[in-house]
Amino acid sequence: MKTSVSIALLTTALAFTTAASAQFAKPEDAVKYRKNALFVMQQNFGRVAAMASGKTPFDAKIAADSAAVADYTAKLPWAAFGEGTDKGDTRAKPEIWKESAKFKEAADKMQAEMSKLAAAAKGGNLDSIKTAVNATGGTCKTCHDAFRKE
Amino acid sequence: MKTSVSIALLTTALAFTTAASAQFAKPEDAVKYRKNALFVMQQNFGRVAAMASGKTPFDAKIAADSAAVADYTAKLPWAAFGEGTDKGDTRAKPEIWKESAKFKEAADKMQAEMSKLAAAAKGGNLDSIKTAVNATGGTCKTCHDAFRKE
Repeated sequence: MKTSVSIALLTTALAFTTAASAQFAKPEDAVKYRKNALFVMQQNFGRVAAMASGKTPFDAKIAADSAAVADYTAKLPWAAFGEGTDKGDTRAKPEIWKESAKFKEAADKMQAEMSKLAAAAKGGNLDSIKTAVNATGGTCKTCHDAFRKE
Repeated sequence: MKTSVSIALLTTALAFTTAASAQFAKPEDAVKYRKNALFVMQQNFGRVAAMASGKTPFDAKIAADSAAVADYTAKLPWAAFGEGTDKGDTRAKPEIWKESAKFKEAADKMQAEMSKLAAAAKGGNLDSIKTAVNATGGTCKTCHDAFRKE
């Protein structure tokens, strides 16, 4: 019984890995993809965060548009953390693959908070946006502290 | 009469430029942003194109998902071609700013074809996908030939 459960889990894990890696021709492409997607996300999130902190004037339309793009792009990097993508031009820590459940949890949490930010920005209330920016920023930091090299 | 029309056009152009540049803290960020967004788009488009050419096996789900991401990300780079972003680590030709109407037309054409590809991929018919991949690929090439350095 135990053995068949383990085999089932292993098969699922292998299928996931194959599907994820199959999306990229080379591991370098995957590394570049996740970094590029995260940069696009960060630029959009940063624009809203700058408004939330008063660094730039609040523009409800730009905030809503930017948060929507950040929300969409927040979903993209994770398929690019497949096996064999721990090398090269990356600050990814080995913990990403050693503690993959914890990493997935951190990634999911970020996406959930970014979606809340997108909803707040769509609503146009600056106080709600500030709260959501702080919560989202917290999830960035938690994940970077645990899974990204200095 | 002519003068006020020109002033109106100029004001619109300036407002656009200001809004577009205001989205990025530094010109380098804009250059990196458009390159990163285009890479994410290209990776997703390329995955579908590889299926269309028979280079990789056709997977309707992956094709639909990838084409949808390519369609979304195809809309992102253009705000990052603001004034002052013609320098640095970029292959952008001066024609982008000298012939901006022609550049916008090429960018719009690509986005329109990419949307058709996303619709075809959602439909799941490989022949329709092949047609749309070819049309979209053509718009990439036209724009690169005119507006990107070798």
